[in-house]
Amino acid sequence: MSVTLAMDIGGTHMRAAVFPKNKTKPSHQIRIRTRVKGETPLQRLLKLIHEVTPEGETIDSVGIAIPGLFDPHEGIIITAPNIPEWAGVPITGMIQEEIGAPTYMGNDANLAALGEWGFGAGKGHHDLIYLTVSTGIGGGIISNDKLLVGHRGLGAELGHVTILPDGPLCSCGKRGHIEAISSGTGIANYVEEQIKSGRTSKLTGEPDAKAISIAALAGDPLANEAFERAGLYLGMMIANYLAIFDPSIIIIGGGVSQTGELLLAPTRKSVENSVFSQRYLQDLTITGAALGDDAGLYGAFLLADNSPEK
Amino acid sequence: MSVTLAMDIGGTHMRAAVFPKNKTKPSHQIRIRTRVKGETPLQRLLKLIHEVTPEGETIDSVGIAIPGLFDPHEGIIITAPNIPEWAGVPITGMIQEEIGAPTYMGNDANLAALGEWGFGAGKGHHDLIYLTVSTGIGGGIISNDKLLVGHRGLGAELGHVTILPDGPLCSCGKRGHIEAISSGTGIANYVEEQIKSGRTSKLTGEPDAKAISIAALAGDPLANEAFERAGLYLGMMIANYLAIFDPSIIIIGGGVSQTGELLLAPTRKSVENSVFSQRYLQDLTITGAALGDDAGLYGAFLLADNSPEK
Repeated sequence: MSVTLAMDIGGTHMRAAVFPKNKTKPSHQIRIRTRVKGETPLQRLLKLIHEVTPEGETIDSVGIAIPGLFDPHEGIIITAPNIPEWAGVPITGMIQEEIGAPTYMGNDANLAALGEWGFGAGKGHHDLIYLTVSTGIGGGIISNDKLLVGHRGLGAELGHVTILPDGPLCSCGKRGHIEAISSGTGIANYVEEQIKSGRTSKLTGEPDAKAISIAALAGDPLANEAFERAGLYLGMMIANYLAIFDPSIIIIGGGVSQTGELLLAPTRKSVENSVFSQRYLQDLTITGAALGDDAGLYGAFLLADNSPEK
Repeated sequence: MSVTLAMDIGGTHMRAAVFPKNKTKPSHQIRIRTRVKGETPLQRLLKLIHEVTPEGETIDSVGIAIPGLFDPHEGIIITAPNIPEWAGVPITGMIQEEIGAPTYMGNDANLAALGEWGFGAGKGHHDLIYLTVSTGIGGGIISNDKLLVGHRGLGAELGHVTILPDGPLCSCGKRGHIEAISSGTGIANYVEEQIKSGRTSKLTGEPDAKAISIAALAGDPLANEAFERAGLYLGMMIANYLAIFDPSIIIIGGGVSQTGELLLAPTRKSVENSVFSQRYLQDLTITGAALGDDAGLYGAFLLADNSPEK
């Protein structure tokens, strides 16, 4: 028997799942810490591969989701903010050499989009936009049943797009990106500013998006306003993505999206108000993600399983 | 011998070109008026097909660029502002029935992108954004060597995206679209407003983009400012398209782009200032279109020649 390995590498944990041949569900999965004293993340990753692979099994291929950007043409990791030692390193080639099986890699948000398309909320759709709204905003695009990666592997950076040129500063240093407004950080920064400028609220100090969501559900006007504002601009940006891609589904995942209708309701309303033709709304689904933390693993499996060299 | 017919339908003229089998240059082309008293545009189109096809030749396939939106899945024209009688009509099926050859259709800006990709400024590129800046702003996208059309054929509406939420009103009725700011209409509206509000300029009344470009080249500060502003926002939007698609080339066509560096120089500068990672600029070309008015015809030829049913 042979298996496909799917891995999802985070700054804190790395996970691996084993998909037996012709199966689309993993037989088992393992999670270990990314960093342990005396070992490099690459050593940890290779250890995880050996640990997860059942004895006597052949590995057909390996798919890996990383928290960073990967150049699929050059086979090199471009950046990985949480694992800086991997920047510029041809990790897939090194793993392939070590274990003797073709190895594929992709950005975790991109592969989460692929996972949701293949097995989650986007099943059966051909044109899909996936947004993950958490500390930042990331994304993935399936266009005509293909994952969009772009010329250098830098495509689908759906959080770093300007929607308000004079807006707040983004983590990347530019102004008015949707990430700077509608991410958890953007929501928290807005509330903090408003409190500093004298607005009254149950919230005090520097509340995070989670605390703001609890206050919003308890009826705090400022907290509600913060989510309304986040949804307003997120909806405008989604209307842009409708005009650009004409997808049949928008999937919103990530921690902040777990507040459910608190973010989704104003987002939907803003999409409806912002879209330049009602035709984009016909037969359009805007929904939460279905696979949670497993989306990246499923996407990594599909990447490895469908890769052209196989 | 057999031929492929390529057609480009405009509100004023319709053109047809004959591509002999295995040739990528037309042997000849004909242009006629779209509207003549007593004939419908469809009758004109069929007449043009019969007129352009050399006697004794078989038609392999027909590709048609239209000034509107086409749903490739349903085979129906969605809208065509200059030929309103075609909205909702399955024109391709009717032509196919009449002449007995597979017939394909696409939006003219989309097919201009395809033409520039196959034969023009974008030859050899796999990921390309084409923008046409004239009265309005249209566009086309080639991603991974495929034309992006979307779920309902409404993709690549690259002019109807919000970049300035409180900005000027767009032709579509929404605010702050890039078309409302950086198109010929956007440039003219800005100058008119500034003159009305008391700014002095060699320009008076309601100058159009052509007159403004002449005044700019002659050193008029307001006219220059109008192009600087158009380029500033166009560059911001292009930086968004870089983050979304990571293309290797941006091609700018259309009447206003024929002012050359007047629009391109501030656009390039703004792209460089706006892009959130310098990596997108590596190996990136921002250039004018190469095929002029023939881009749509070449795209229509490629659409017909490469269509999957052939």
